[in-house]
Amino acid sequence: MPRSGFYGSLSSPKVDVVIDMGNPFLNRTVDGFLKIGAVGACKVVAEETFECLNRGNVSKHKLEHALKKMCKEGAYWGTVAGVYVGLEYGVERIRGRSDWKNAMIGGALTGALFSAATNNHRDKVVKDAITGGAVATAVEFINYLT
Amino acid sequence: MPRSGFYGSLSSPKVDVVIDMGNPFLNRTVDGFLKIGAVGACKVVAEETFECLNRGNVSKHKLEHALKKMCKEGAYWGTVAGVYVGLEYGVERIRGRSDWKNAMIGGALTGALFSAATNNHRDKVVKDAITGGAVATAVEFINYLT
Repeated sequence: MPRSGFYGSLSSPKVDVVIDMGNPFLNRTVDGFLKIGAVGACKVVAEETFECLNRGNVSKHKLEHALKKMCKEGAYWGTVAGVYVGLEYGVERIRGRSDWKNAMIGGALTGALFSAATNNHRDKVVKDAITGGAVATAVEFINYLT
Repeated sequence: MPRSGFYGSLSSPKVDVVIDMGNPFLNRTVDGFLKIGAVGACKVVAEETFECLNRGNVSKHKLEHALKKMCKEGAYWGTVAGVYVGLEYGVERIRGRSDWKNAMIGGALTGALFSAATNNHRDKVVKDAITGGAVATAVEFINYLT
């Protein structure tokens, strides 16, 4: 039963925001969204900073554009990661086992979901599911190696 | 000092090929190349199987094309993974610490390396390095979540 708890903690230099939604599935999804969203936003900051340094001029218009891109890309990365983390956890609970097949199934489902959300071609959805599963499996294998 | 050892082991159903090059850096790189290369090749098999089932015809020409694509994509995935795993290990040894910054630096170096190998634009190399670092960091964070 999901408790409706909510607490935040912020510590420095290792910033860690914890939001307890009272449900492990939701916790993971929100955690994935926030952390990977932050990574996506940071990526845009690094890119835009490099572009400013490279061209040597900063304007208000450009800052606004960068801010918008940060929000957009952060939200996209966060959503993909949140859905993947949530689905992988769900698959793990359903299968009752913790191995690389969870990552494969979770990745395939995430790929299919986002593909189906953005286009209507059945073939494209299947191919994106295959790609998602393969990428998630590869990442899972790299985890064991590093 | 790298010993010139070499041994293989194959067990089923959990297939695991271990090639000992006598050096942890080389071991990881080769391991990454083989494992992720296999994932890349499997992805092509899944894709081509789906295409055959979808179109309902199999020809010798198509099988040859699929085989070629398997080798090409497997080698590409394997090379990227091997270089990343090797670089991350190298960064870990140099920094003497094991945290997400290794993944970020390793990803950035891998992105820059492959970008520099395929094109000559300095801007593109820096952007690919940023993207590589961000993706590797995101993956590292997802590891902790799942």
